[in-house]
Amino acid sequence: MRVTPITTTGGIERRPFWNSYSRYLTDLRPDAALLAGETADAQENVFLGSNGEETAFLCEAVRGAGGVTMVQVESVVNGPLPQVDLPADRVVPLFTRDPSRITPRQVLMAMMVIKGIYAPYEVRSLNHGIGYAPAAIELLLPTYGESLGLKGRVATHWWLNPHPTLIPAIEAGSVRSIYSLGSEVGMERYAAARPKIFFTTPGGELLTNRLFAQVAGQYGVDCFVGATLQVDADGNSSTANRDRISGFGGAPNLGSDAPGRRHPSPAWVKAGKERAEALRWAEWPSIPFRGRKLVVQVTPTVSEKGGMPVFVPELDSLSLAHEGGLEVAPIMLYGDDLTHIVTEREIAYLLRCATREERRAAIRAIAGETPVGRSEKPEETLSLRRRGLVQTPEDLGLDLSQVSLDQLAARSLADLERISGGLYTAPTGEFG
Amino acid sequence: MRVTPITTTGGIERRPFWNSYSRYLTDLRPDAALLAGETADAQENVFLGSNGEETAFLCEAVRGAGGVTMVQVESVVNGPLPQVDLPADRVVPLFTRDPSRITPRQVLMAMMVIKGIYAPYEVRSLNHGIGYAPAAIELLLPTYGESLGLKGRVATHWWLNPHPTLIPAIEAGSVRSIYSLGSEVGMERYAAARPKIFFTTPGGELLTNRLFAQVAGQYGVDCFVGATLQVDADGNSSTANRDRISGFGGAPNLGSDAPGRRHPSPAWVKAGKERAEALRWAEWPSIPFRGRKLVVQVTPTVSEKGGMPVFVPELDSLSLAHEGGLEVAPIMLYGDDLTHIVTEREIAYLLRCATREERRAAIRAIAGETPVGRSEKPEETLSLRRRGLVQTPEDLGLDLSQVSLDQLAARSLADLERISGGLYTAPTGEFG
Repeated sequence: MRVTPITTTGGIERRPFWNSYSRYLTDLRPDAALLAGETADAQENVFLGSNGEETAFLCEAVRGAGGVTMVQVESVVNGPLPQVDLPADRVVPLFTRDPSRITPRQVLMAMMVIKGIYAPYEVRSLNHGIGYAPAAIELLLPTYGESLGLKGRVATHWWLNPHPTLIPAIEAGSVRSIYSLGSEVGMERYAAARPKIFFTTPGGELLTNRLFAQVAGQYGVDCFVGATLQVDADGNSSTANRDRISGFGGAPNLGSDAPGRRHPSPAWVKAGKERAEALRWAEWPSIPFRGRKLVVQVTPTVSEKGGMPVFVPELDSLSLAHEGGLEVAPIMLYGDDLTHIVTEREIAYLLRCATREERRAAIRAIAGETPVGRSEKPEETLSLRRRGLVQTPEDLGLDLSQVSLDQLAARSLADLERISGGLYTAPTGEFG
Repeated sequence: MRVTPITTTGGIERRPFWNSYSRYLTDLRPDAALLAGETADAQENVFLGSNGEETAFLCEAVRGAGGVTMVQVESVVNGPLPQVDLPADRVVPLFTRDPSRITPRQVLMAMMVIKGIYAPYEVRSLNHGIGYAPAAIELLLPTYGESLGLKGRVATHWWLNPHPTLIPAIEAGSVRSIYSLGSEVGMERYAAARPKIFFTTPGGELLTNRLFAQVAGQYGVDCFVGATLQVDADGNSSTANRDRISGFGGAPNLGSDAPGRRHPSPAWVKAGKERAEALRWAEWPSIPFRGRKLVVQVTPTVSEKGGMPVFVPELDSLSLAHEGGLEVAPIMLYGDDLTHIVTEREIAYLLRCATREERRAAIRAIAGETPVGRSEKPEETLSLRRRGLVQTPEDLGLDLSQVSLDQLAARSLADLERISGGLYTAPTGEFG
């Protein structure tokens, strides 16, 4: 049995866990934690398996607050533990994206991301959320990406869960390191066999920590790629919709620029220069340079299942917040934190827009057959394309005849198992 | 002996440690760490004393990277350790600010911060750097602060080192919690005796972690108060000066708004509303609300020692960077990350400025007898004062006859020892 750690928030007012972490050290000082682990020894040392996540932090916060921590384990063993960890919080199983479910539209968007963002910005370090479009990118890196000459130049350092869809890129030698926030079922032996890539213990256990991963995602990566359910005309997005309320995960933290970053990388510098150029900062005296993290939303204009418009005049979350009496509406990512939105039609380079009006024009230009897209003005879109604020696949020089499922380095879970040399074992059952 | 952890950067190119943390999980994967602790037992468990700081994180990063960690301790003991920690990195002793060295000018600035920022914004959770002006604020909270009716309403939750100058506020019952990034010599017994305030182990050891503290400071506090050596006409600041290069510490991380914050507090909401009003966001449809962290620079117009102008036309760090061939100049805080600058003359409410030109006007209005201040236009300053963008002590209703060293709750280290009930023992020697 696994237990949820106690928090003082709940229901619709529940805030992103990432905000709570810092509050456990300030105004939400925890009195108690109920945690779960894999095994314990007679001395009550606890072994977590490979899902450490934020446990070390929760324990520390409760311990420092003089609170009580209770740990439940699967079994108490006599011999030595594989390693001594702190107690684990509830394991949230993460579901493998089966390559056989990737659609041609997702392949197209993935190619646009590689050709239109990863290549020109030289994105070296990055974070992918879980989803079919990111999975498609991962599976295209050793094929399409390599054909563009990107091997070893982009997407070398990652923080993300150990997605099986990264196996082909790892085996192709184009991945240098992966830090994980949690584990993924079936990846245990593969991660243990690739200790130079994954962060593992000497015994081969995957080291994971959700807090550390969030910090890495905030300061240590050039680019965040996320998805959403609704986007408004300003690019604000939320997964709190009238018919489906999903959590934000770490997106609010990851999907924004950390203003405290000071170390340069090619992507961070180029993004900063584009922003400075758009805002004409160069015309002012004495503006010290600062870079910018890339924050990319990848979304079809209408949902893959059900064909619901993703681009809407007003987010459901605003009326949900109003009805629920919330002081602040649950926005996952604010539009002015984004640098790019990618749909199956075009990429909006929001970073290159000088004004809010220009950003709105770029967004309606890429929004297709949706309420937002219907206010597109063809003349305006042409001008935005000429200036590089909006780019179609053709503008990017992307050969549409190449858009094919055959580009994927693996077409099935069985392919992934094979490419892993039998080290990865796909779990059985249903995957979302 | 204490040893510095190995990093791959050094000299003038050294970046803030806070940026390095995340890179240890991405592109600066560490091969080795040399660490030091207090005591170890025969099983090589290590006890750190009360300076844990970022040790847990460094160990984790090296361990996961398959690297080697060497720990040096003062002694190996037979009996059980006070507690089992991970190995400690080099201890950086932090020096107590002696209340007897606080000047009337620092008392004035401290009163301006309390009356002009903490009170109207209801700043509950905050971080103070080390310095005489913050020490003055801490010593004024139980006297001047309480006379304004602020007890229990502002400055209740802190993250900072266990400053002895907070003892009077703690003893007056106006502090609810303090999370510390490191320890402070002489505070061991006092912290152990106040486990409801400090984060301590059951045995009374102060729990510290620099990484956790940085996360708390980023997402968990309403307000950061810092100091600097140079400020330019745009409010950009740096401590990398031609005659003195100081490190930035955690300032770049702490001294900026975390765009991922989603939980409201009175200060965060009021700051967000002021920004929205200044930028006339309310005139647009569908702008979802977001709050703002307060980032306050407190600085005299000319330095306390030497009378050097703090406000300068161009930061030394720009030419230093040029000479050193750095890609990005070492800016501690960028002007557009600040919400307020406090000098002994006025407060500039930068958050309420609509344009960059307006911000520059507010800064030259408060810069006194410096190259920047000399371009002040009296007519313009009057207009800014009337609109609340600049406020003098008189505008704030601050009674200048109250500005006196007698307002300090402690006038000496001996006073602090007495108020602590003998639990605090001031270290002997020189303090800066």
